[in-house]
Amino acid sequence: MTLNFYMPTKVIMGKGCIKENAHLFKALGNKALIVTGARSAKVNGSQKDVEEALESEGISYVVYDEVMSNPTIECAYEGANLARKEQVDFVIAIGGGSPMDAAKAIALLAKQDIKQEVLFLGGYSEEVLPMIHVPTTAGTGSEVTPYAILTNDAAKTKTSISSPYLFPKIAFLDARYMKNLSLKTTINTAVDALSHAVEGMLSNRANCMCDALAKESITLIMSTMDALKKGEVTEEHREKLLYGSMLAGIVISHTGTTAVHSMGYSLTYFRNIDHGRANGLILGELLSFIEKEKPEVIEALLKVMSLESVTAFKALMNDLLGEKEVFTKEELASYAAIAIKAKNITNCIVTPDQEDVIMMYEAALL
Amino acid sequence: MTLNFYMPTKVIMGKGCIKENAHLFKALGNKALIVTGARSAKVNGSQKDVEEALESEGISYVVYDEVMSNPTIECAYEGANLARKEQVDFVIAIGGGSPMDAAKAIALLAKQDIKQEVLFLGGYSEEVLPMIHVPTTAGTGSEVTPYAILTNDAAKTKTSISSPYLFPKIAFLDARYMKNLSLKTTINTAVDALSHAVEGMLSNRANCMCDALAKESITLIMSTMDALKKGEVTEEHREKLLYGSMLAGIVISHTGTTAVHSMGYSLTYFRNIDHGRANGLILGELLSFIEKEKPEVIEALLKVMSLESVTAFKALMNDLLGEKEVFTKEELASYAAIAIKAKNITNCIVTPDQEDVIMMYEAALL
Repeated sequence: MTLNFYMPTKVIMGKGCIKENAHLFKALGNKALIVTGARSAKVNGSQKDVEEALESEGISYVVYDEVMSNPTIECAYEGANLARKEQVDFVIAIGGGSPMDAAKAIALLAKQDIKQEVLFLGGYSEEVLPMIHVPTTAGTGSEVTPYAILTNDAAKTKTSISSPYLFPKIAFLDARYMKNLSLKTTINTAVDALSHAVEGMLSNRANCMCDALAKESITLIMSTMDALKKGEVTEEHREKLLYGSMLAGIVISHTGTTAVHSMGYSLTYFRNIDHGRANGLILGELLSFIEKEKPEVIEALLKVMSLESVTAFKALMNDLLGEKEVFTKEELASYAAIAIKAKNITNCIVTPDQEDVIMMYEAALL
Repeated sequence: MTLNFYMPTKVIMGKGCIKENAHLFKALGNKALIVTGARSAKVNGSQKDVEEALESEGISYVVYDEVMSNPTIECAYEGANLARKEQVDFVIAIGGGSPMDAAKAIALLAKQDIKQEVLFLGGYSEEVLPMIHVPTTAGTGSEVTPYAILTNDAAKTKTSISSPYLFPKIAFLDARYMKNLSLKTTINTAVDALSHAVEGMLSNRANCMCDALAKESITLIMSTMDALKKGEVTEEHREKLLYGSMLAGIVISHTGTTAVHSMGYSLTYFRNIDHGRANGLILGELLSFIEKEKPEVIEALLKVMSLESVTAFKALMNDLLGEKEVFTKEELASYAAIAIKAKNITNCIVTPDQEDVIMMYEAALL
């Protein structure tokens, strides 16, 4: 038995947890940079709660609310320049994966001079602005991971910056901020979280503790599937999804993601397909692929999911994700050439080669 | 759903993990204080592995190997004085709960001037020597808790120092160090770990994530029970126990312990009964006590244990722990008067009053 476990983020979950714990902001400094997108944090009340907490503690702040979906490298440098100019002490990320990932890169680049060309090459020091993360979707789990995933135009995909110094100090989880999330986004993010937990169990870096957390995560997320299909999502479902996505984040912090993410990134990069949806379109085919060599692993996974077969899982994803986009064989072959170079593809307990990737893409999308 | 989770210790488990990760010691400084007991760390190879790792990294060290079972306050101050005199940068604890708890108090007292009279009163600052812990029993889980439990002669019991700054930086778990542990100690420590996980689930500070970890811990520890009863403990069993006790440590870091520990401490303080054994003698009666008001909680717990009834649990403990010590009613009444003042007694989902405590002591021990 071998095990590596490290997750230093303090997780605080509950209705009103930000205001109840306003005093915790003060420990990080006197001036904050709020990193978020243009709109949702203002609509769902999360930004207001954070700002009121900061004001109650006498902490000043500036807002950088220009993070787009699938944030670019330029966005990270722009935010970091603002953080330097404003001499902030810490960063608060509010939003889904995009603001949280951008915030991590900003917190890093605000303290370390790293040229764009070598941004993804590692070797980061521990000099990073401390962070508080407030997820407002239940998908990415970025609030408890050491990863910042950015659009990498040079490689025509998304690439992750990974450093143990990128774990946020605190994650505040309040499901009320997801109340007005559209059903489509709720489904896409839930599928993303499910994919994280499943990929974690199919990773050759899996360990017993992550498996235990992945099982808890999968059980919780699967318990919301009927509600997602019917479009009847209650606050209780949202809490389960938020808790489940956080657990799945802890899992991939240790296991990394696998071929599903490598393959999904092209769908997002070239066709602007939502990240969670992209994973959901492919995940079933990875299960089929692994089942051929390791049927016992897939059997155990299906048991956790309370499903009979991989076919049943694919049917569930089809139900949730609806009509698929149209692709050509040539397009998918070109994506496979990119996916096969991704480092997470080698995390699979059965590593696909380029032919396998093409086969999975075609089975999933043609 | 509410949740608080914080466990910043990096856990590394596996055969040979200390030597494989020798480079991690260097990050904590150039001079270490090894805190351990007189004998076992020398016999089981753990101290040698640590010393060789330090030597390979050019780190100098001094050894304080005078930690006794149920360490005293004096021991903590003595170790801290040595740490100051030798100007060490960090502390390495090797052993069971006693050296690990003593090491935490030493790491605290080496950096903070705290008078003995107020040692248990809290208000500790973050100035603590960083620590690496190497558990050589599978019971306490101290390697992943913020607690240092010392013998408190003023209160005639054991009392804990608790601070988030007392989490070790790293815990190295190598089950080989338990190879020569006597069956009696193996059983007592396994029962201690089981008690932690069970008490965690019966705590009013329990949360969903700790429950998930507690269930994993209980399942693992219970899977070793037949081997413990037969005295046929393999390395695989020891790994399960070491992993299970670590998980249970994470659980009690969040939930605290409950009446079982409050009541057990008197058995240790006045009668020198091993800590884990003391818990095991009492745990069944707490289950009976809670079952009266919350049968559904105990039913769920028994299901995790794969046991039919609390009676079956008590029979298992009797089997493991053998003949009980002899007590008088008066003795138990005097212990109850002490236990009822312990802060962890109020953690129970059903809080016993003094009469309840007497009733549980008598049912368990007369």
